[in-house]
Amino acid sequence: MTNLSPSDKALVPFVSVDNMMKLVHHIGIEEMLTGLADYIEADFKRWELFDKTPRIASHSAEGVIELMPTSDGEVYGFKYVNGHPKNTRDGLQTVTAFGLLADVGTGYPVLLSEMTVLTALRTAATSAMVARHLAPKGADTMAMIGAGAQSEFQSLAMKAICGVKNIRLYDIDPAASAKAARNLSGMGLSVTVADTREDAMQGAQIITTCTADKQYATILTDNMVGSGVHINAIGGDCPGKTELAPAILHRSDIFVEFPPQTRIEGEIQQLAEDHPVTEMWQVINGTAKGRTRADQITLFDSVGFAIEDFSALRYVRDQIKGTEMYHDLDLLADPDDPRDLFGMVQRAKG
Amino acid sequence: MTNLSPSDKALVPFVSVDNMMKLVHHIGIEEMLTGLADYIEADFKRWELFDKTPRIASHSAEGVIELMPTSDGEVYGFKYVNGHPKNTRDGLQTVTAFGLLADVGTGYPVLLSEMTVLTALRTAATSAMVARHLAPKGADTMAMIGAGAQSEFQSLAMKAICGVKNIRLYDIDPAASAKAARNLSGMGLSVTVADTREDAMQGAQIITTCTADKQYATILTDNMVGSGVHINAIGGDCPGKTELAPAILHRSDIFVEFPPQTRIEGEIQQLAEDHPVTEMWQVINGTAKGRTRADQITLFDSVGFAIEDFSALRYVRDQIKGTEMYHDLDLLADPDDPRDLFGMVQRAKG
Repeated sequence: MTNLSPSDKALVPFVSVDNMMKLVHHIGIEEMLTGLADYIEADFKRWELFDKTPRIASHSAEGVIELMPTSDGEVYGFKYVNGHPKNTRDGLQTVTAFGLLADVGTGYPVLLSEMTVLTALRTAATSAMVARHLAPKGADTMAMIGAGAQSEFQSLAMKAICGVKNIRLYDIDPAASAKAARNLSGMGLSVTVADTREDAMQGAQIITTCTADKQYATILTDNMVGSGVHINAIGGDCPGKTELAPAILHRSDIFVEFPPQTRIEGEIQQLAEDHPVTEMWQVINGTAKGRTRADQITLFDSVGFAIEDFSALRYVRDQIKGTEMYHDLDLLADPDDPRDLFGMVQRAKG
Repeated sequence: MTNLSPSDKALVPFVSVDNMMKLVHHIGIEEMLTGLADYIEADFKRWELFDKTPRIASHSAEGVIELMPTSDGEVYGFKYVNGHPKNTRDGLQTVTAFGLLADVGTGYPVLLSEMTVLTALRTAATSAMVARHLAPKGADTMAMIGAGAQSEFQSLAMKAICGVKNIRLYDIDPAASAKAARNLSGMGLSVTVADTREDAMQGAQIITTCTADKQYATILTDNMVGSGVHINAIGGDCPGKTELAPAILHRSDIFVEFPPQTRIEGEIQQLAEDHPVTEMWQVINGTAKGRTRADQITLFDSVGFAIEDFSALRYVRDQIKGTEMYHDLDLLADPDDPRDLFGMVQRAKG
């Protein structure tokens, strides 16, 4: 008699939003950010062997839906992510995401996971991992410009991975700053809510910009930025959306993830197409220089890249082993005899 | 107090393999094939308004993993599908698949579904829908060359949609023919197992080829094919894999799904790049001619296209409403305040 229950191979571990949040608390949020940063750094080190397809975008008047695939030759991964700025008007998220890993050798999926929470974690882990390489030595104060959904993750990642102790928050909406300050209280950081951007920048060696304006904005003007700082520019992440005055870019050494994507989506869309940039993976594997002078401005023009999602899914896959923080999804048909799919369907009757 | 359970908007209906099989039996397999054919035909009629991205393939030594996205401007869909011929050696499926629909206006996924079973159904439904347009009038006998996983679905679809009464099965492996004949018994078809391909073709007005050879094979030679038949060529569906002798192609009027894809993957990869073909959607909406003469050989060079998967997912989405044949997946994070993702994570603690 044919066994009607799917075999182990046909079941795909699934991490729901609820289980992702349980996993965060099981591991500890700072430990998870650190773990993610280590996985991302490890994948940046072997950057060259990845299949780096550009993301596949489906644009509409309301927004964009993207598939971001990559592969290291053994494991394949992709992320589904949307961006719909007007969603918040209807009480929906601007961005939602989920992701999948599959075995390259068999094509069988091996992990399906929510990625709204996970993307927030990997974005912060990437920022802090990069700051660990580029920020001035002894940096302990970060200006956090924009107190939206990413701000607390950025703050905790910079604490856990770079040793930041002081966060100086600024947002045009005081309620957002108050929300972030409240969320960060009791987490071992000294948090100051600043009245102005200039005030937020006082004494900061790291400046993170993460605002939501969908246009060419000038969140930082040239005169606000002193020498020797590290700028972690997160918010300029799609065509037509930037945060920094061009003069700052001209004073900075610019580090990016994947130049073909950053030139379209990042701060450097404001610059000439051949403006020199350094690929971050080369700094990490030692083939390019990072910070070379104390008075240098380093700028990480971050837009998010598929390999970071791949690293994050890899981390989750390793962490859920032996836990109950996933359940098995009956996603793949698995007849005993591959030629007898019809028989499998028929035997399921009644 | 924040409600920790996800909102309706954050839950995505998921159709497992088990539920897909239940749905097949709930609807009835012939009724489902007919319903799918109607949805596919409706989408062929409005072919021009679809976003027809080529599939995005990640190739490896062992096989391929593909993402097949499309959109009609209101709904977005994609299918994940792998092809790993050596999988059967290890007791795994050559092809597994799943798919997703999302709302273009919000980017929110609205359906996640297994598609291994569903792809088998939609492939057969597409074949029969096309045969309804191209096969000679009164066709009641089909030669089924290749008795693999697709053969029973093809046979039942041709019965339900085109009125076929007799199936003449041939496979190089008699065990495969016996399996298909056994599965089709008691289903209102007269099934004959033929000893040779020539024998299978006796009296058949429709010839379906669906074999698994991953090479340029000659399943049908020129002398086997009489005038006036309709050939439904399913098996030639990737570069380097064909089933028909080129001479047959030269005697036939050839109908295809999406020429840029069929020229790479279909039988016509054996022909000149500018060999004339007719796009099937134009036959269906009346802007191109189908069968014009009784002695004409019509050939549907089918490779499978993203729009057929989209139609199939659309059908499933409509059919599961009000049933219990899906469950809600907690795939999307949905904080009360979109800026307070961190707070949502923190409140989930303990």
